[in-house]
Amino acid sequence: MHEFELIKNYFQKLSKKSPSSLNLNDDVFFDRKNRLVISVDTYTEGNHFIDFKKPDLVIKKIIRASISDLICKGVKPKYYFISGSGNKKSFCKSNLSKISKSLNQEQRKYKIFLGGGDTVFSNKLSFTITSVGFAKDIVYRNKAKINDDIYVSGNLGDSHLGLLVLENRINLNNSLNKYFINQYYMPTIQLKLVDQIKKFANTSIDISDGLLTDLDKMINVQKLSYKLFLKDIPISKNLKTVLDLKKLSKINYISNGDDYQVLFTASKSKSRIISKIASNYRIKLTKIGTTQSNSTMPSIVDDKNMKISLKNKGYLHKF
Amino acid sequence: MHEFELIKNYFQKLSKKSPSSLNLNDDVFFDRKNRLVISVDTYTEGNHFIDFKKPDLVIKKIIRASISDLICKGVKPKYYFISGSGNKKSFCKSNLSKISKSLNQEQRKYKIFLGGGDTVFSNKLSFTITSVGFAKDIVYRNKAKINDDIYVSGNLGDSHLGLLVLENRINLNNSLNKYFINQYYMPTIQLKLVDQIKKFANTSIDISDGLLTDLDKMINVQKLSYKLFLKDIPISKNLKTVLDLKKLSKINYISNGDDYQVLFTASKSKSRIISKIASNYRIKLTKIGTTQSNSTMPSIVDDKNMKISLKNKGYLHKF
Repeated sequence: MHEFELIKNYFQKLSKKSPSSLNLNDDVFFDRKNRLVISVDTYTEGNHFIDFKKPDLVIKKIIRASISDLICKGVKPKYYFISGSGNKKSFCKSNLSKISKSLNQEQRKYKIFLGGGDTVFSNKLSFTITSVGFAKDIVYRNKAKINDDIYVSGNLGDSHLGLLVLENRINLNNSLNKYFINQYYMPTIQLKLVDQIKKFANTSIDISDGLLTDLDKMINVQKLSYKLFLKDIPISKNLKTVLDLKKLSKINYISNGDDYQVLFTASKSKSRIISKIASNYRIKLTKIGTTQSNSTMPSIVDDKNMKISLKNKGYLHKF
Repeated sequence: MHEFELIKNYFQKLSKKSPSSLNLNDDVFFDRKNRLVISVDTYTEGNHFIDFKKPDLVIKKIIRASISDLICKGVKPKYYFISGSGNKKSFCKSNLSKISKSLNQEQRKYKIFLGGGDTVFSNKLSFTITSVGFAKDIVYRNKAKINDDIYVSGNLGDSHLGLLVLENRINLNNSLNKYFINQYYMPTIQLKLVDQIKKFANTSIDISDGLLTDLDKMINVQKLSYKLFLKDIPISKNLKTVLDLKKLSKINYISNGDDYQVLFTASKSKSRIISKIASNYRIKLTKIGTTQSNSTMPSIVDDKNMKISLKNKGYLHKF
């Protein structure tokens, strides 16, 4: 059963009396009356993070993954709660020190603080992070319009390459290895976008599962299609180097998830303000395609406007 | 390492910049400016609940355990988030149906609703529940005064006896078995107390780990002692029957935890209003002792005013 199906069949009706839950079909819960925004997510070893050999880095990854849900909606994260389940080895004194130090660094970087939490014994390691922020309004999913431009922040694919390095599935020089591993553990999330995104975005999501999977999710109840241009999808110089060196196809390295970049659509009339904000605040924002009426099939095209297909769209949570 | 030590050594400093976290030494997080109250707790199989043979009942137990944290502070729970980690068997369709149905029943009973959540794959079953409510003020821990009366709501010990029945460690007739098992899974939490407790309580906590453990926790930074009267500690008629029948000592059956009753102190001048409210709202509230200056040792005394000792004080979260 896919996650979407599970929610629809068993849990959506429980949230019906509350508009704040957004039908359990958005990144966050938004109680407009109380201006409260909440995101709850669980991260497990071997699934959301490769292992716990580097607790300091794993903690950074999951904190960023959690606050990314708020940031893509235009909401500044204010505090977070962390519930850790694990064995004595995972939570030995040395690891607890590292966890505490990393949390402190993330608190300074993103101006958030620890609200509370819990630690329980379990053979399987997992963390549930609850992130909380306040906002008058948010950018919702499923509010794209036909012929909107589709944008993405930052670069895609670096984090996935970091995972391939960690899994010894690709072999690079030390400097590239380090770069990609760091991008896997410490994705460059776009806090600066928080106060800007409501000025231009019609709809938004953060890319955790993969560009195409999350694009589908962003408009999953809208009768909309889209066209993306492969050449416009932004990747880092380092990823470009690796693709050239190893003769790999870009198409297979831009939709594998863990990017924590913001995907959004905006009316064409907003293109000037988007350029201006991108330049003023030094946020990389790239137009990668447009939404279309659903009389056409969703597509991604190459330099010659030829439709191409992917090995997979990204990570689908299956149960 | 005990839970308290772990929090103190590694996490308290991370919450220092925020008065809302209450130094990570209370049942809840309270952001007074935004009137927001949050509780986050993780419940694991074999620890917080015996097993998952009855998913419908386990879900009721953990939802009540979670909202109990808000209720004991005088805060009405408004919505909850549930994150489940487990294997395919735990979250098969039949179990998901039962979970969904139970959540629906609890939503009606306590006027709460599902805000969101997450389901992830894990070999070990656990749930993290985030409960959220709003309040101008709360009843804090560590605000008892010397010579306060100590009160407890409802009855103690039934839930623990239910656990003994489930573990086949005690053998009773069918009707008693059923009664205690129900009390284990569906403790009678005191939602009616929510709007009343601020009228009289100086300090409060809910009893999850055991009467004496939680009493110690409630005043853990205060230089206070206490005296409890064993005969006054309220137990159900059914528990009285079992203690008489099996010739068991009451002292060993009143501080084992999982009661989810409210423990609080109040000035002696409040005794009349407490009686009145208890009678008007039909909430059982029993005076079981008094706080004292710490020139005396904490004690629990029998009918002849003789100090007695317990086998254990309750459940201490150790890591």
